[in-house]
Amino acid sequence: MASHGFWFLGAENASGNGSQSPNTPRAWCQAAAQKFSGGIGSKLCALLNVGEAEKTAQAPVKAEDGSTAESCGCNKPCNCSKATVCFSDLYATDLLPALNGDAKTMNFLQEVVDIMLAYIVESFDRSTKVIDFHYPNELLQRNNWELSDEPETLDDILISCRATLKYAIKTAHPRYFNQLSTGLDMVGLAADWLTSTANTNMFTYEVAPVFVLLEYVTLKKMREIIGWQDGHGDGIFSPGGAISNMYAMLLARYKMFPEVKEKGMSSVPRLVAFTSEHSHFSIKKGAAALGIGTESVICIKADERGKMIPSDLERRIVEAKQKGYVPFFVSATAGTTVYGAFDPLMAIADICKKHDIWMHVDGAWGGSLLMSRKHRWKLNGVERANSMTWNPHKMMAVPLQCSALLVREEGLMQSCNQMQACYLFQQDKQYDLSYDTGDKALQCGRHVDIFKLWLMWRAKGTIGFEAQIDKCLELSEYLYNKIKDREGYEMVFDGKVAPVIKARMMEYGTTMVSYQPQGDKVNFFRMVISNPAATFEDIDFLIEEIERLGQDL
Amino acid sequence: MASHGFWFLGAENASGNGSQSPNTPRAWCQAAAQKFSGGIGSKLCALLNVGEAEKTAQAPVKAEDGSTAESCGCNKPCNCSKATVCFSDLYATDLLPALNGDAKTMNFLQEVVDIMLAYIVESFDRSTKVIDFHYPNELLQRNNWELSDEPETLDDILISCRATLKYAIKTAHPRYFNQLSTGLDMVGLAADWLTSTANTNMFTYEVAPVFVLLEYVTLKKMREIIGWQDGHGDGIFSPGGAISNMYAMLLARYKMFPEVKEKGMSSVPRLVAFTSEHSHFSIKKGAAALGIGTESVICIKADERGKMIPSDLERRIVEAKQKGYVPFFVSATAGTTVYGAFDPLMAIADICKKHDIWMHVDGAWGGSLLMSRKHRWKLNGVERANSMTWNPHKMMAVPLQCSALLVREEGLMQSCNQMQACYLFQQDKQYDLSYDTGDKALQCGRHVDIFKLWLMWRAKGTIGFEAQIDKCLELSEYLYNKIKDREGYEMVFDGKVAPVIKARMMEYGTTMVSYQPQGDKVNFFRMVISNPAATFEDIDFLIEEIERLGQDL
Repeated sequence: MASHGFWFLGAENASGNGSQSPNTPRAWCQAAAQKFSGGIGSKLCALLNVGEAEKTAQAPVKAEDGSTAESCGCNKPCNCSKATVCFSDLYATDLLPALNGDAKTMNFLQEVVDIMLAYIVESFDRSTKVIDFHYPNELLQRNNWELSDEPETLDDILISCRATLKYAIKTAHPRYFNQLSTGLDMVGLAADWLTSTANTNMFTYEVAPVFVLLEYVTLKKMREIIGWQDGHGDGIFSPGGAISNMYAMLLARYKMFPEVKEKGMSSVPRLVAFTSEHSHFSIKKGAAALGIGTESVICIKADERGKMIPSDLERRIVEAKQKGYVPFFVSATAGTTVYGAFDPLMAIADICKKHDIWMHVDGAWGGSLLMSRKHRWKLNGVERANSMTWNPHKMMAVPLQCSALLVREEGLMQSCNQMQACYLFQQDKQYDLSYDTGDKALQCGRHVDIFKLWLMWRAKGTIGFEAQIDKCLELSEYLYNKIKDREGYEMVFDGKVAPVIKARMMEYGTTMVSYQPQGDKVNFFRMVISNPAATFEDIDFLIEEIERLGQDL
Repeated sequence: MASHGFWFLGAENASGNGSQSPNTPRAWCQAAAQKFSGGIGSKLCALLNVGEAEKTAQAPVKAEDGSTAESCGCNKPCNCSKATVCFSDLYATDLLPALNGDAKTMNFLQEVVDIMLAYIVESFDRSTKVIDFHYPNELLQRNNWELSDEPETLDDILISCRATLKYAIKTAHPRYFNQLSTGLDMVGLAADWLTSTANTNMFTYEVAPVFVLLEYVTLKKMREIIGWQDGHGDGIFSPGGAISNMYAMLLARYKMFPEVKEKGMSSVPRLVAFTSEHSHFSIKKGAAALGIGTESVICIKADERGKMIPSDLERRIVEAKQKGYVPFFVSATAGTTVYGAFDPLMAIADICKKHDIWMHVDGAWGGSLLMSRKHRWKLNGVERANSMTWNPHKMMAVPLQCSALLVREEGLMQSCNQMQACYLFQQDKQYDLSYDTGDKALQCGRHVDIFKLWLMWRAKGTIGFEAQIDKCLELSEYLYNKIKDREGYEMVFDGKVAPVIKARMMEYGTTMVSYQPQGDKVNFFRMVISNPAATFEDIDFLIEEIERLGQDL
């Protein structure tokens, strides 16, 4: 395995300042530090000292005044205030709610913030590695990750924070294309920090008044964008698209056979669901969990572009009915996981209407195109769906996790899932109980996933999201045109090429993109563009890098 | 409705410094600011100016130099550096990944951090209100929460952050007893901030190497504590106890009838599950979702202390078998939601063994007692369970959300839930694929819930968690003894008393505790002690406050 150092400093400088060409961490630290006033310079230095700090962990060097000697580690003055608090004498029990814990708490949290700020700046720097890859066993040995009976000092805790980020994947890096969720939005991040600070639960208005209102406002807005009249309907933010899809299936079943809630599947005829062969695996997972069974999910043929073929859907529905089965659910996909294909929603809506079947649109990936006046036509017909999954944590780059299920019929979620626990959803509360949303879902406690989306929306406006999405599609078109006629691409008949290139990518850490086979096609790279930090140059870099790493194959 | 101001300043001072007796926000700000060196003083001032800031939003006052005039608002010098950056001229598009966005990004994030630090210090201050309560319609009008096409300035975004915290429930407040999850741990908070910053997904080692390893290490440790040999077994962190319980039921069903995954419930006989009448509603919710039906969840009688009666369990199992049903799942509760009762696990384990039924322990609330040498006997027998739900976000006060499902049999989760999506779980990756945990659960993407627990565990050690839990139980005993013989308590025969007192609590904002009826008992207060910030004095306060607010009833 290639054993590169942490820093991958080349000609390109983090500061974009051509006058310096740093080639050591310390030089970079100084250069960066000079750019900022106040304590910010020192923030940039913090992360650079992970190596030193790790050594210090075994044998902390203490100065006469009780402060640790490590400090910032820079040769030049950069206003580091780290030495003023001696974290190696402090423990978690010295922090709030400890008596007089205010100042220590603020200093500790500020130190963690400094570590994070340095990581953030570094993540956007193309001259750093996307990943400092190590195999599991190797990573286990590189640090002490064990849990023990005795507490560690806050200094040790800070070291763990640095080490965790050192080996993290820089998902914000402009050359990270590996998943549908990429990038790191600064307003979204701030909102997620604030969410953690508020540390509450979405189940009742009582404990999350603002967040419950913001969820209400945002879901309504999303329904308006879908095209449901006056934004009427229902919805909830759930822990990911797979769960949102499962909720939709649960609702469809309940709508057709409400007795299933009490009596179970033995009270209903054999139900069958339909989705394209390119759809996400969560449809089958949901069917397995709900007691429907994966064999009752009928996979509809897709065309060569990955779109569901409506005539095949109708044929299979009729066939199922002839067998005495009850078709209850069609999941169309708006943006398939591998090809990014959009099923023809209008034609599917016609078929669902004709056969009286619940139409769900899994827009986990492609739903965000609704924000773009230029591209939303790809989802024409979504307004006729009964439900839709839409994950703002994908193409809208909201921090993980943020997935919405939108439902056209009001009240159905509540009646499908409610158990009316009297300890939580007391009916004699002083406020309007429709704001207690906890009984609409299977979760009891529910993480606050709304604030980051809401705050980003305020910060960008709808037009800001639109611009971001349009740019992703523009980059995607650029990539397509670039490789269309390029020699070597689409010429791969050996399924081992992509995995080898990918493994090399991770070891060099220069970029990350996913691969897989599909149907009769051998392993190919699945290029995802959702990263707001990516530019045309990053696309060029990726193409060159794949060629470079695969040269000998 | 009582319309108190934001600050509830009394004789008690945030600083615990008796020399000052501030009675206005500004005086408090100055007093607090004097305590801290550097920029920290100013941090305390930030939140105090929400009112002013909100006004500024409509008509921002700009100084000649382009900086906003609001600044800190203090009369005294307190090192405020806020005026140096003019956020009212900046937009989200000025932040990273924008060119030269580093400094602006750091300044913006630092400003958000300052707002949060002030909120944190305030949250632990007994002289502030737990909640600044407003009815939904009123809260909707108090601020502009709408989403629009156009972007807002970063100044507006900061105002939204302040407003959101102003109306938030202070779940860290020492007098917040309203839910099973209370308190705010500083190391846990730091870890959650870092988790947001790393912004990745738990499904593969590839994108979350450190977090996947930490989950592995922590789950193993938890299994050792349960008492499973050498910590063998399996597990996952899921989005809450309700989902963990549902996962357990799913596994139990699959273990007995693996064909259910493909063929659905129509391929199996009628299954029945058993749980106590005091168990959490998620057992029924899970049964409804999985197609088992709520009628197939048989509620076993509990004794007057709320514990499941084993002889009734056995009787109902035999009865079910006689009807031709198949008992497949018993969910015992370790710490019921309302009484905090522990079912007799040893006796239940005997019955499950005799009848060959999967034994699950819902220890969402009480599982944490396993960390206490003094109290863990209450869970004797848990080592014989097939699975256990354990929510560190409850009595261990880990930030929301953090729920573990632990499973004794290795490999079962994978075979029950896997769909082997070839775009994610490629079998030709370069590393050990057992670290790709995503196919063990129903979720596809999975939020990183592990780091906060792991970092807190490192910071406290097992003995630190033990001390925290022992203290909660000590406070609980103190409360019990105090009200045991007190006049007026347990004398309430009118179910309207508790809701009225609770409504008054929220309007005054002095404390928060939940209430409900149970069986033939009318509304009573359910006192939860999981808040590490609570002391004996807070218990005294609560008792007095309930009396004061209910005096005229």
